[in-house]
Amino acid sequence: MAADPVKFTLSEDQIPTHWVNLLPDLPGDPVPPLNPRTMSPAGPDDLTPIFPMSLIGQEVSADLEVEIPEPVREAYKLWRPTPLYRARRLERELDTPARIYYKYEGVSPAGSHKPNSAVAQAYANREAGIERLATETGAGQWGSALALACSLFGLDCLVYMVGASYDQKPYRRAMMESWGATVIRSPSDTTESGRAQAAHPTGSLGIAISEAVEVAAGDAGTNYALGSVLNHVCLHQTVIGQEALAQMELAGDEPDVVVGCVGGGSNFAGMSFPYIRRVLRGDAKTRFVAAEPAACPTLTRGAYRYDFGDTVGLTPLMPMFTLGHDFVPPPVHAGGLRYHGDSPIVSGLVKHGLVEARAYRQNETFGAAVEFARSEAILPAPEPAHAIRAVMDEAEEAKQAGEERVILFNLCGHGHFDMSAFDAYLAGKLEDPEFSEADMEDALERLPEAPAIA
Amino acid sequence: MAADPVKFTLSEDQIPTHWVNLLPDLPGDPVPPLNPRTMSPAGPDDLTPIFPMSLIGQEVSADLEVEIPEPVREAYKLWRPTPLYRARRLERELDTPARIYYKYEGVSPAGSHKPNSAVAQAYANREAGIERLATETGAGQWGSALALACSLFGLDCLVYMVGASYDQKPYRRAMMESWGATVIRSPSDTTESGRAQAAHPTGSLGIAISEAVEVAAGDAGTNYALGSVLNHVCLHQTVIGQEALAQMELAGDEPDVVVGCVGGGSNFAGMSFPYIRRVLRGDAKTRFVAAEPAACPTLTRGAYRYDFGDTVGLTPLMPMFTLGHDFVPPPVHAGGLRYHGDSPIVSGLVKHGLVEARAYRQNETFGAAVEFARSEAILPAPEPAHAIRAVMDEAEEAKQAGEERVILFNLCGHGHFDMSAFDAYLAGKLEDPEFSEADMEDALERLPEAPAIA
Repeated sequence: MAADPVKFTLSEDQIPTHWVNLLPDLPGDPVPPLNPRTMSPAGPDDLTPIFPMSLIGQEVSADLEVEIPEPVREAYKLWRPTPLYRARRLERELDTPARIYYKYEGVSPAGSHKPNSAVAQAYANREAGIERLATETGAGQWGSALALACSLFGLDCLVYMVGASYDQKPYRRAMMESWGATVIRSPSDTTESGRAQAAHPTGSLGIAISEAVEVAAGDAGTNYALGSVLNHVCLHQTVIGQEALAQMELAGDEPDVVVGCVGGGSNFAGMSFPYIRRVLRGDAKTRFVAAEPAACPTLTRGAYRYDFGDTVGLTPLMPMFTLGHDFVPPPVHAGGLRYHGDSPIVSGLVKHGLVEARAYRQNETFGAAVEFARSEAILPAPEPAHAIRAVMDEAEEAKQAGEERVILFNLCGHGHFDMSAFDAYLAGKLEDPEFSEADMEDALERLPEAPAIA
Repeated sequence: MAADPVKFTLSEDQIPTHWVNLLPDLPGDPVPPLNPRTMSPAGPDDLTPIFPMSLIGQEVSADLEVEIPEPVREAYKLWRPTPLYRARRLERELDTPARIYYKYEGVSPAGSHKPNSAVAQAYANREAGIERLATETGAGQWGSALALACSLFGLDCLVYMVGASYDQKPYRRAMMESWGATVIRSPSDTTESGRAQAAHPTGSLGIAISEAVEVAAGDAGTNYALGSVLNHVCLHQTVIGQEALAQMELAGDEPDVVVGCVGGGSNFAGMSFPYIRRVLRGDAKTRFVAAEPAACPTLTRGAYRYDFGDTVGLTPLMPMFTLGHDFVPPPVHAGGLRYHGDSPIVSGLVKHGLVEARAYRQNETFGAAVEFARSEAILPAPEPAHAIRAVMDEAEEAKQAGEERVILFNLCGHGHFDMSAFDAYLAGKLEDPEFSEADMEDALERLPEAPAIA
């Protein structure tokens, strides 16, 4: 067994040249976002105040592939291609006949997959003559990624950081500042949206989004950048799945099931979209599993409706599974999964039965993360710990069924910034908050009036 | 320029098969460690209570190369080969004709180069029937690496963590515990050495070493593991330099100068020893620069004398540059460089003029780290920030001289655990502690009686 490979690497010239656009492949009629005032499909005019035309073009593109600009591929070279591993030690530990593979995005300078889209967005904005990007961040993964990307492309970066995180995670703020970003505690007195929310001093992701969008909409030199949910963000992340396809070929294996955690959907999209295209074309029979927190079970318990992307209601209405745009999820440590909605494309795939969603409690995901770390060495972030929990279930099922099953997942970030959560878990003090059906019903009652989705 | 490569990767089967042992290459007569009671060369009997025979064999080996056991190479595959980068963005930023390359060890699961030796030591001890390893850690890099290695090879791990760090860095403790280690605050009441130091509740690395050595010496099933200084630790790290040789060949370049930071010497040794062998054989004319903190300037200001490796005086006497075994360096953030002594081999190389040592102040190293992060994206740990400072000086010299100069250094770890220090630097609140000549003279007066080094 000693000579069996565990790591599959690609060279720099094997970084993909195109992103995979799944939008034209989707079954059923197109379901466009809506302008909340007119209830007609949101067009470029609804988006130009905050996004450059090239990204708007990607958002609605009917092309099967979108070429990656060379300067973006150059930036990718700073950490891509990322490695793909066969989890031989974990397989032995689980005593499973399943073969488990994982792609590892934690080698990026920000420690997660987020820079894949951040550099693409920073480049597109710089090319459009934009001087500054505004964004929001919760736990700090996206804010760090955009700060990094802006430093690479010479843009200023303004980050509204959720108040509670700003106070508890000064090292994340320091990371963004080290890359030259300006970080403002949200809610702030720098925006109308922030001043209106002064009664909620700990803030929320939805409030921070409202602040960043407001700044971008009011300043011609400033645009907005979002770290997930939107089609063009999912598009950028497909470098992950394309590299995985090449690496699985090196490994000589074909996944029976692809697993990913889902918050806004960009990580799940990144790994799965290139694989889903193969299934839609009849070239493969892969299953897909989306793992989310039971404390924020958008895909498993939410309503498939039009809703706003932010708390205040500044964005177009998006067709998606939602828990209500002002639903505030319990404070689980997987900050990247605490979002009321989900990518419209990923939502549609779940609705059409192409992706199966599962929800997991916080403690069982940390248990899976610790077991993974002790066999595979890498300490996962709390977000991919949800995927690992689902992978272990799949491996156990394979064992019970006595079948060889090939499982592939994306380990989208390391947990080096989340050790206080591991500390709480090991001390038996980690909370296991429950989703409140009542809170959600309450939030759903405040959903905007909009047509039902066909 | 867009098509020029920035990243040079090797495949899994290019992980080195042997470590490079520089001991037989050293100029001059051998300078063995001494038994402090007899003042005769320390033999295997002095070391068997705390080290397995195979590592003692590596410590004194006259072989030019030592084969890497296959299970250790298997463990290396979890993160090796590590990438080598051409720092094209930094070169442009510095407007230098120099070509700058760096090897990046921060992709390991512990975030530094330390696991290269930790897995080798854990394997050797398990093969010798040892059940537990005891060690010390300051900032936590080495303790994390050994905890990880023990989890991979099924050993228990006991870490004495310097009291001040234990209190300030609970996330580092949580990281070690996530990999299954037991972490004890030092000084503790679990050892005689610890109880004797109860008057120094914040502890020191020297005290923690004494505690770990005492436990290992008194328990047949427990051995001790050290993260730097010793010959066999330097040996294990030479996978870094060997991979760099292959990657520089891919890049088609030959370094004029190799730069590394030095604390105990293992990082410096790892990159430089394979290159130094070529110089000693007349095959190359590379210069070597060792960068250390001005607050703990062992190589630039210390005495070349026999001294203990620990505070209490439990180790053999080592021939090395030292500031005195009970010298307590000012609390700079580069915790891995706060050691009173240095690897005897690296000390000998400095003494013989093969390596040039330079000392840098804390603030200038953080300035270099931030400049590096904003061009090359990776946030360096405070330790390699010293190397980066020296690299920038070399690049500036090349610019002044109008000469192409090829510079290679090892970026031995990322700074994700050190963001509070970056925060202090950016806020202008980072201290710039000075080395106290008086303190050192005081400490040198307490050096053990021993022969001068020839």
